[in-house]
Amino acid sequence: MVKSALMRSLMVSLAALLLTACGPEDEAGPGAVASSGKTYNWKMVTTWPPGFPVLQEGAERFAENVRAMSNGRINIKVYAGGELIPALQTFDAVSQGTVEMGHGSAYYWAGKVPEAQFFSTVPFGMTPRGMNAWLYHGGGLELWREIYEPFHVVPFPLGNTGVQMGGWFNKEINSVDDLQGLKMRIPGLGGKVFAKAGGNPVLLAGSEVYTALERNTIDATEWIGPYHDQRLGLYRAAKHYYYPGWHEPGTVLELTVNKRAWDSLPADLKAIISHAAESENVLMLSEMEQKNLTALKELQARDGVEIKRFPDDVLTKLQAMTEETLSEEAAVNPAFKRVYDAYQAFRQQDDAWTAISERAYLGIEQP
Amino acid sequence: MVKSALMRSLMVSLAALLLTACGPEDEAGPGAVASSGKTYNWKMVTTWPPGFPVLQEGAERFAENVRAMSNGRINIKVYAGGELIPALQTFDAVSQGTVEMGHGSAYYWAGKVPEAQFFSTVPFGMTPRGMNAWLYHGGGLELWREIYEPFHVVPFPLGNTGVQMGGWFNKEINSVDDLQGLKMRIPGLGGKVFAKAGGNPVLLAGSEVYTALERNTIDATEWIGPYHDQRLGLYRAAKHYYYPGWHEPGTVLELTVNKRAWDSLPADLKAIISHAAESENVLMLSEMEQKNLTALKELQARDGVEIKRFPDDVLTKLQAMTEETLSEEAAVNPAFKRVYDAYQAFRQQDDAWTAISERAYLGIEQP
Repeated sequence: MVKSALMRSLMVSLAALLLTACGPEDEAGPGAVASSGKTYNWKMVTTWPPGFPVLQEGAERFAENVRAMSNGRINIKVYAGGELIPALQTFDAVSQGTVEMGHGSAYYWAGKVPEAQFFSTVPFGMTPRGMNAWLYHGGGLELWREIYEPFHVVPFPLGNTGVQMGGWFNKEINSVDDLQGLKMRIPGLGGKVFAKAGGNPVLLAGSEVYTALERNTIDATEWIGPYHDQRLGLYRAAKHYYYPGWHEPGTVLELTVNKRAWDSLPADLKAIISHAAESENVLMLSEMEQKNLTALKELQARDGVEIKRFPDDVLTKLQAMTEETLSEEAAVNPAFKRVYDAYQAFRQQDDAWTAISERAYLGIEQP
Repeated sequence: MVKSALMRSLMVSLAALLLTACGPEDEAGPGAVASSGKTYNWKMVTTWPPGFPVLQEGAERFAENVRAMSNGRINIKVYAGGELIPALQTFDAVSQGTVEMGHGSAYYWAGKVPEAQFFSTVPFGMTPRGMNAWLYHGGGLELWREIYEPFHVVPFPLGNTGVQMGGWFNKEINSVDDLQGLKMRIPGLGGKVFAKAGGNPVLLAGSEVYTALERNTIDATEWIGPYHDQRLGLYRAAKHYYYPGWHEPGTVLELTVNKRAWDSLPADLKAIISHAAESENVLMLSEMEQKNLTALKELQARDGVEIKRFPDDVLTKLQAMTEETLSEEAAVNPAFKRVYDAYQAFRQQDDAWTAISERAYLGIEQP
């Protein structure tokens, strides 16, 4: 077939006309052309402060990637917590369709959906590797979708913090006795477990943590990891005792999509969102790791931070209190029990495999 | 604007005509319409046997995802090793533009590009978490692209095997003495290191491994991990001694794209391929983990496989021989030295961070 420049030009004009004609208001069918023509202008709200490194930035990178892949057919405008709605109303806003998308973590909705915590992280739970294996290939994501279904919310894993640090302490922890009455900023399940072990968990917003620690209003605080902790200046507020983590071993971050909005998308845009979320899942964790290892080097070499270890009896106590906390909830909440059982079944096999793969290998690496 | 069904139908017809008219032969510009109209029919060759679980399947899933995201504008036909060209000619075929894409692992081209091995895996090297952090956020991928640039090949991480097992042995390894003269199927850098430690590495194709081990032609073999090893029946061929790994702690798989083909793509299709590769990177590793943990349970509970540990002196010896092997190559090959130095610099920081995060945590989990 011979194509003249004129013919081609005419076709381009016709196509441009078509694209304009089938604009946002048009209810296009699922075919190829409709899918090319319609533009979706969506809103995403997050649970993060404006500009919050890695997490808010990652949500924004996800939106940019979706825009690039769809050639502008989905434009997701991302709002940080409080910019459009309060951070902790993210789930409700997506559920009610006030916005099409949210980014946060499932344990923020523990008051409404206690079993959602297993899709975020639990103390002494699985690391990111195990969580991804469970979610993507072990039935975890299907279960998560079922749990959110009554709320008209479709969840996707989108990011992970990696193993979080145990936190900063103004005094050394040498035994379970040292936990008694200790005032520590530690929210969620970690806080419940800490209380059962004799500690005194305190609720504080991120913005109040530094001052509270510096003025000895609290004895200890957890935050995230070396990078975010360094930015918050916690190494200056505490007496430099920094402990490895136990309460958030790989916090999964979530993309939530309103079910009706999701159903309105053609297949190609659904695929773009799904795979963009998987892509950002690995990118965000990788960025956390890279920033944490750089910050750790500075904290140790420049800031004189001292890394400690919790003694075995402290960890044994915290682990026992974790099992007690989860079992108590499972005893009175069948939905919680169902997710707990599924999580534990996968996790036991993951532990056995980890023991002869990553754990055996890391043991070799640095005896 | 009022739109009648007739008008809409006419527009769909016009668009269909346009899409047909601007078919594969048309050299479209980079604009939105051109990007919607042109179809790319590409070929991908891989280094895997036909139907090889997880790896060949993952390459095929990647192609399906790209097709879905692009609404059929890129159709990648995937050929297993030997179907179109021999498996180990994958890199050359992509380099020469015989095909647009390849899937394999960088250490297969060690004869041509020795430093490429660092983008795959090296003995006692980084695990998948560290590799992803280095590649995506630590400068690793930029360096990799620079190394492949003279070959007109653009690389992307696409998949990871996780920590591979050390292999199956017909006799117990109780000291370095037991390695002397031991005939083991172990290719690549691992084989070189094994030889330096006194072993006798043997080259065997995957199809020959089972029989060689069963008939005592070899004393030991490595393969991949519980899932693939179980499929190959190695637990029946060897006397059930199964050892954790040291030589491939997180083998990165690679997508390679011919540079000219890559440059011919509009921005949206480039974004689709990039993010589909990142997506499949986490999906493939997650599938490996899930299949390995399931297979391990069967191997232990049903097949009576006995998990052993290499004694410390064996691991110390192998680690020392690894450093010697890499340093010898670095001394005579500046390009190798450059990548080795970059890898080591990142890796040292990653080790320090791992020590107080994953390693400290996994130590807690199962003392």
